[in-house]
Amino acid sequence: MARFIKDRIASKGQVPGSPILIGSQKMDQPVLRLMEYNPKGLVELELKSIDEAISTKSPGSVSWLNIFGIHDQDLMKQIGEVLEFQPLLLEDIMNTDQRPKYEEGDSYNAFILKLLSYDATSRTISSEQFTLVLGKHFVLTLQEQTNDLFKPVRDRIRNAKKASRLFDPDYLAYALLDTVVDSYIQIIETIGREIESLEKRLFSDPDKALVQEIYTLKTELSFLRKSIRPVKDLMRDLMRSENSFFQDKYLHFLKDLDELITQATEAIELYSAMISDHLNIYSTNVNNRSNEVMKVLTIFASIFIPLTFLAGIYGMNFEYLPELSFKYSYLIFWIVVICVVVGLLIYFRRKKWL
Amino acid sequence: MARFIKDRIASKGQVPGSPILIGSQKMDQPVLRLMEYNPKGLVELELKSIDEAISTKSPGSVSWLNIFGIHDQDLMKQIGEVLEFQPLLLEDIMNTDQRPKYEEGDSYNAFILKLLSYDATSRTISSEQFTLVLGKHFVLTLQEQTNDLFKPVRDRIRNAKKASRLFDPDYLAYALLDTVVDSYIQIIETIGREIESLEKRLFSDPDKALVQEIYTLKTELSFLRKSIRPVKDLMRDLMRSENSFFQDKYLHFLKDLDELITQATEAIELYSAMISDHLNIYSTNVNNRSNEVMKVLTIFASIFIPLTFLAGIYGMNFEYLPELSFKYSYLIFWIVVICVVVGLLIYFRRKKWL
Amino acid sequence: MARFIKDRIASKGQVPGSPILIGSQKMDQPVLRLMEYNPKGLVELELKSIDEAISTKSPGSVSWLNIFGIHDQDLMKQIGEVLEFQPLLLEDIMNTDQRPKYEEGDSYNAFILKLLSYDATSRTISSEQFTLVLGKHFVLTLQEQTNDLFKPVRDRIRNAKKASRLFDPDYLAYALLDTVVDSYIQIIETIGREIESLEKRLFSDPDKALVQEIYTLKTELSFLRKSIRPVKDLMRDLMRSENSFFQDKYLHFLKDLDELITQATEAIELYSAMISDHLNIYSTNVNNRSNEVMKVLTIFASIFIPLTFLAGIYGMNFEYLPELSFKYSYLIFWIVVICVVVGLLIYFRRKKWL
Amino acid sequence: MARFIKDRIASKGQVPGSPILIGSQKMDQPVLRLMEYNPKGLVELELKSIDEAISTKSPGSVSWLNIFGIHDQDLMKQIGEVLEFQPLLLEDIMNTDQRPKYEEGDSYNAFILKLLSYDATSRTISSEQFTLVLGKHFVLTLQEQTNDLFKPVRDRIRNAKKASRLFDPDYLAYALLDTVVDSYIQIIETIGREIESLEKRLFSDPDKALVQEIYTLKTELSFLRKSIRPVKDLMRDLMRSENSFFQDKYLHFLKDLDELITQATEAIELYSAMISDHLNIYSTNVNNRSNEVMKVLTIFASIFIPLTFLAGIYGMNFEYLPELSFKYSYLIFWIVVICVVVGLLIYFRRKKWL
Amino acid sequence: MARFIKDRIASKGQVPGSPILIGSQKMDQPVLRLMEYNPKGLVELELKSIDEAISTKSPGSVSWLNIFGIHDQDLMKQIGEVLEFQPLLLEDIMNTDQRPKYEEGDSYNAFILKLLSYDATSRTISSEQFTLVLGKHFVLTLQEQTNDLFKPVRDRIRNAKKASRLFDPDYLAYALLDTVVDSYIQIIETIGREIESLEKRLFSDPDKALVQEIYTLKTELSFLRKSIRPVKDLMRDLMRSENSFFQDKYLHFLKDLDELITQATEAIELYSAMISDHLNIYSTNVNNRSNEVMKVLTIFASIFIPLTFLAGIYGMNFEYLPELSFKYSYLIFWIVVICVVVGLLIYFRRKKWL
Repeated sequence: MARFIKDRIASKGQVPGSPILIGSQKMDQPVLRLMEYNPKGLVELELKSIDEAISTKSPGSVSWLNIFGIHDQDLMKQIGEVLEFQPLLLEDIMNTDQRPKYEEGDSYNAFILKLLSYDATSRTISSEQFTLVLGKHFVLTLQEQTNDLFKPVRDRIRNAKKASRLFDPDYLAYALLDTVVDSYIQIIETIGREIESLEKRLFSDPDKALVQEIYTLKTELSFLRKSIRPVKDLMRDLMRSENSFFQDKYLHFLKDLDELITQATEAIELYSAMISDHLNIYSTNVNNRSNEVMKVLTIFASIFIPLTFLAGIYGMNFEYLPELSFKYSYLIFWIVVICVVVGLLIYFRRKKWL
Repeated sequence: MARFIKDRIASKGQVPGSPILIGSQKMDQPVLRLMEYNPKGLVELELKSIDEAISTKSPGSVSWLNIFGIHDQDLMKQIGEVLEFQPLLLEDIMNTDQRPKYEEGDSYNAFILKLLSYDATSRTISSEQFTLVLGKHFVLTLQEQTNDLFKPVRDRIRNAKKASRLFDPDYLAYALLDTVVDSYIQIIETIGREIESLEKRLFSDPDKALVQEIYTLKTELSFLRKSIRPVKDLMRDLMRSENSFFQDKYLHFLKDLDELITQATEAIELYSAMISDHLNIYSTNVNNRSNEVMKVLTIFASIFIPLTFLAGIYGMNFEYLPELSFKYSYLIFWIVVICVVVGLLIYFRRKKWL
Repeated sequence: MARFIKDRIASKGQVPGSPILIGSQKMDQPVLRLMEYNPKGLVELELKSIDEAISTKSPGSVSWLNIFGIHDQDLMKQIGEVLEFQPLLLEDIMNTDQRPKYEEGDSYNAFILKLLSYDATSRTISSEQFTLVLGKHFVLTLQEQTNDLFKPVRDRIRNAKKASRLFDPDYLAYALLDTVVDSYIQIIETIGREIESLEKRLFSDPDKALVQEIYTLKTELSFLRKSIRPVKDLMRDLMRSENSFFQDKYLHFLKDLDELITQATEAIELYSAMISDHLNIYSTNVNNRSNEVMKVLTIFASIFIPLTFLAGIYGMNFEYLPELSFKYSYLIFWIVVICVVVGLLIYFRRKKWL
Repeated sequence: MARFIKDRIASKGQVPGSPILIGSQKMDQPVLRLMEYNPKGLVELELKSIDEAISTKSPGSVSWLNIFGIHDQDLMKQIGEVLEFQPLLLEDIMNTDQRPKYEEGDSYNAFILKLLSYDATSRTISSEQFTLVLGKHFVLTLQEQTNDLFKPVRDRIRNAKKASRLFDPDYLAYALLDTVVDSYIQIIETIGREIESLEKRLFSDPDKALVQEIYTLKTELSFLRKSIRPVKDLMRDLMRSENSFFQDKYLHFLKDLDELITQATEAIELYSAMISDHLNIYSTNVNNRSNEVMKVLTIFASIFIPLTFLAGIYGMNFEYLPELSFKYSYLIFWIVVICVVVGLLIYFRRKKWL
Repeated sequence: MARFIKDRIASKGQVPGSPILIGSQKMDQPVLRLMEYNPKGLVELELKSIDEAISTKSPGSVSWLNIFGIHDQDLMKQIGEVLEFQPLLLEDIMNTDQRPKYEEGDSYNAFILKLLSYDATSRTISSEQFTLVLGKHFVLTLQEQTNDLFKPVRDRIRNAKKASRLFDPDYLAYALLDTVVDSYIQIIETIGREIESLEKRLFSDPDKALVQEIYTLKTELSFLRKSIRPVKDLMRDLMRSENSFFQDKYLHFLKDLDELITQATEAIELYSAMISDHLNIYSTNVNNRSNEVMKVLTIFASIFIPLTFLAGIYGMNFEYLPELSFKYSYLIFWIVVICVVVGLLIYFRRKKWL
């Protein structure tokens, strides 16, 4: 199945904007986890429906609703209605092939990006759709399945002291995005380490499997680039926006995030160039070794083929072959052999083949 | 015949702006299909002439006139006059090699782009000229031949409920363009899948036919790029225009379309890079295998050529050749043979050729 | 002789702006052809001097003076004086290596570009300097030699009906430029066709001559790019200018011309990429075939060299060589031979060399 | 360990902005060196704490506090508080993988960049985090370890005469940055010299080790590019800023610094292209030599293998083999041998293999 | 010694702006040549000191002081003081590795660029620092050594008639810059011609030396690019400046100069691409020839190695070997030989190796 662009056939001919999951469903039942907190206290709940979230909402506190599972059309439609989404946003959220983007509505800032995770054994990156919606008083996050990427943020909320910036929903959104981008950097690091570890084998043991590894890493980097590069556009759109919910005092944090993304994309380009160099070097080394092999062949063949001919001459059964009966023939034969061998060895040394 | 740029010889020396079909005529008689509808009802007609379309026009309803066949000069001229086209627009519409573009007149927005279709068996993309003209109350589409690409849109019109956006001609235009762009994405997907399926054969069975397949896919991607990339300019021109007939409420839809095109071009670049990588890897693998072949040759030749010489020596018929009559000669001969073989095997193993 | 940049040695140390022909003179005597026409009639004359052109000038009519041969310094100086050229313009017009450009004076718009023609037999593009000067009531064109590129335009003038746009000098200028650009497109087409025709030979019959053809086409494309790409800048300068003599109503024509140039440069890039791919594919195919050749060699040598050694053993003349007198030796010899052959064939098949 | 991007795992889940050293700690105890001077005199002190620096501060004089060792969290926090750093700046300063950048606060201009040093023996570049903070009356510099890169600047301060620009803190900052950039240029020079020295070996002695050297230099250049290119952005941000502490009279110095960085990055690109060319040339030379080797093999084998066959024929023991008893057979044999040799030599010469 | 970036070690730790020659000193004693002229007359002098130039200065005339030798610090300092240079300008003038640039002061416009000269025998470009300072009433030029590049300009001054533009210092500056740029074009031409002359050898006689020539030309082009490309920035800075001393009437001349530089850089890129193509083609040709060589080897070996085995069989000395005594054995042997040869030849022809 095509990996870089997913099936849109399902949605073909559909009314644009209709909420249908593009991609495979990764869990049965959506899970809704709510954290509602203010300087006075924190409530953590597992909800059944989106209505509960609305009803439990108390003024003055921050709500972070984390939904795992984005395949339930009814749930998604309900979210769209409650938050007054633009017509196509829901479709984008449910299209797991959606290019990362930032979108602004009257009552929300929406960020669609990818959660990436790397399986070092199989050397594959898997990608998951991640949506963060920031409102005046809440943060809504949507993931395809449960995982504990955001556990550190939850812990920080649980331990938040009075003056914590986490009581600002925009800062919470920043903290979550920062966690996502941090995870990108870590994956790039891991792949980078693998690329650099290839370097030694390149010169010591350039076997056939190396080409395949180089190829796999190259493909993974392409996949990373595709997932991460659009996040730069997302950040630019966010920072240019004049209506985002981010307060001026957090502008520095956004700039820092932006720099982190720049650094990530630069690292990807660097490693891509490096892996291409690896392939070039590998290829040059293969040619070098072919050259070596051929030299050995040529030296053996060039020395012994003429000698074999020489021996062949005196193996002939001609009745009249004067040398055969000459007494010193065999001695002279050996002298000639030695001369030929020495002569050719000198010749090959001069050519620097020995 | 040149495929990436078509024959303009026909038009040479012609008055610029004269409507002549550049490209091959794909059907005999143009077919005109009209859908005229408003919330109260829908009329579907097959028309004989453009006049009929004008005469049946009832106020307050949306007309979508779909013309299949753009080779009829009289028909095209009539259209140009009725809709008050700019001088060169007709020529552009009839030039099937026209670069996709957006053009605005007082009474119309014209979109010229390509309908693409992919034949998986022959691995060829065929391209067809597609023009969409959006007016205040109508949409006119021009295709080179009949096909059912827009059937889903027709069906949606047939089933349209009262509040449907389809009662806005600009939304209808969007829906049609979205269908076209969707079809691009599907073709890219299909080619992408083929490219990714090559990956396995690259390592398991890198035969000669693979090069040709790689080459074909590379060419198809070039063709896709040529057809799709200008659509980004088209979208940019449209979105920058202040006089287009698109209402503000549909701006989000245009932005979404624009993102889809961006995603399509990014996917094309990604697959192009991938197919280039494939060729590099293939080439490296060929060199690797040549290296293997040469090693086998060298090992065989280097072992047996010296031995053959050795046997040749004692096949000589010299009268005076003392070893011949020595009793243990044959035994010693075999011992030497075994030593040579073992010595060379050790040598080759040290060189990691075995 | 250097082909991509011509000899400026002649002009070295000269006062900048002095009119000296850079390049080779292509004809003896300049030829001046005048068409002067208005809706009432047309006069066609072959003139002796530039003065005649001025004297015959009647108000209200359009003059198109076409001069073939730009080497005559006196003539060129006179033109420069009559039309009040900027100091360096004459030098540029006479420098056949001048980069295409647009220049505006108070009384003229000057376009310097290249006329290209392609000789399919020798596969060479030849280039000729072309200057078009548009004034309020006249068009002046300068070519290096006589040819009939603009015959279609002349014919259109001869047949012009009352309302013809050709009675506007700016439209005449457009029509001439359009003819030039059209000729570019045709050359690109022709070369494109040749490139595409190489494709088949690439796989069926990749002989040595093919490299040279690929190289020639690559060079021709570079030459085309060099000649055509600056025309985009020319068009941009023209369209940005607020003082050009082009009326607003012809803006659409200029935009169309601009698009044509864009399409031409895109096609050049496309074909350049294609021809580079051709070379890569060719190279991979050569390697593939080397691999094939080596496999055949290896199979033959690996089978028969050991067997020859075997035969060599029993060709030795040792007095004590027990197998010689053994009755079934010869039979066993053949059995061994067959085993070796079969064994190696199985081995090579496993390696997929057979 | 990945070298191009460092471990952020340590900081994961941390509150953004918390001061933790990312990278390895390079010394035990931070060292604080203060230079406080005005036209009347200079005080040089080694301090214990940041408080001392504040207490010794006398109005009207310039302070340059140089801190070696950035791993002490308490010290760093204190600095952050005293200088009123933006929340994330401290984290950036302590993250040795931070991309070079310029940041402006109300009371400071901060520059984060890299100190690079090149070890010619091991051919590795080592990188150290360097931060310069410019205030109204002071300059603070932070390095990872002690070194004497800035000794020349210290000496100039010690010898400063009355009118010296060094009494302006902004000029001092410039002088320090200039020293850093100068050290970049020197490293590029050194690597450049090594690259150019490879050139000769490329043609005289293209052994296997050369590939590894080429690879190493390529990697070092990538590392330099990564460290130096962002400094251009830093300079651009600084020069665009309207609130920097640089006086207008020093603008020329900043422009000069900017040009130096441009020159450095251009040199890096130049050398990168050069080293890529080296690899290409090397690769072509290897192919050339393989071709040579194969020619020698082919000449030897093609001459002697047929001759050996010839000799083999007359070594056969057929009872009926008429040539054996023919008197001139041996003479004719030699004539045939000579003809074959000469014929093949002519053939090979015609093919230009000899 | 590194050629692309010169030694800055000498200047390290120096006060920025101090005038020290970076690069090698090319002559002993600076030479000062003054031309002072107005429409009434011309004075040519060889001066001892800069003071003389000032004292001889008569109002209303243009002075052109040409200094050969820029290593004399006192002289340079004096110039800097008299002309009120910005602090770092002198350092830039004396740094022969300075990137070309334009700088404006209140009383001068300074242009730093390179004089290039090409030695066709050794195929090396040598570069010399050139500074032109344009004041209200004078032009100062600084070169590293005496040469007669500007002789044509001197001659034009000597022969200048009343209305000559040379009585404007800005035009004089233009004329000198034009001479420099013209010399660039000529060098590019010369190298271009050499590159194009390689083309034939590429196909007729692709020997090893060709690689080295290709490499040398590639390096020279890199050097040219490095020296000439920044001149585009210089021209842009000059043309954007609103305070330059160039009068509006000479704007056309500057534009022309700018176009010339554009043309030069385009030609460099073109030739660079061409030389890269040359290397690719060369490489493909080497592979092609290796393929040829291997075919010859394979054909010879594959035919004669099996035959040798055949002959070997009947050279065996088995007592019981029935064919030996069979009367037609020898005849049949030859028939078999001929069949094998013919069979293999047909096989090779089918594979298109013959």
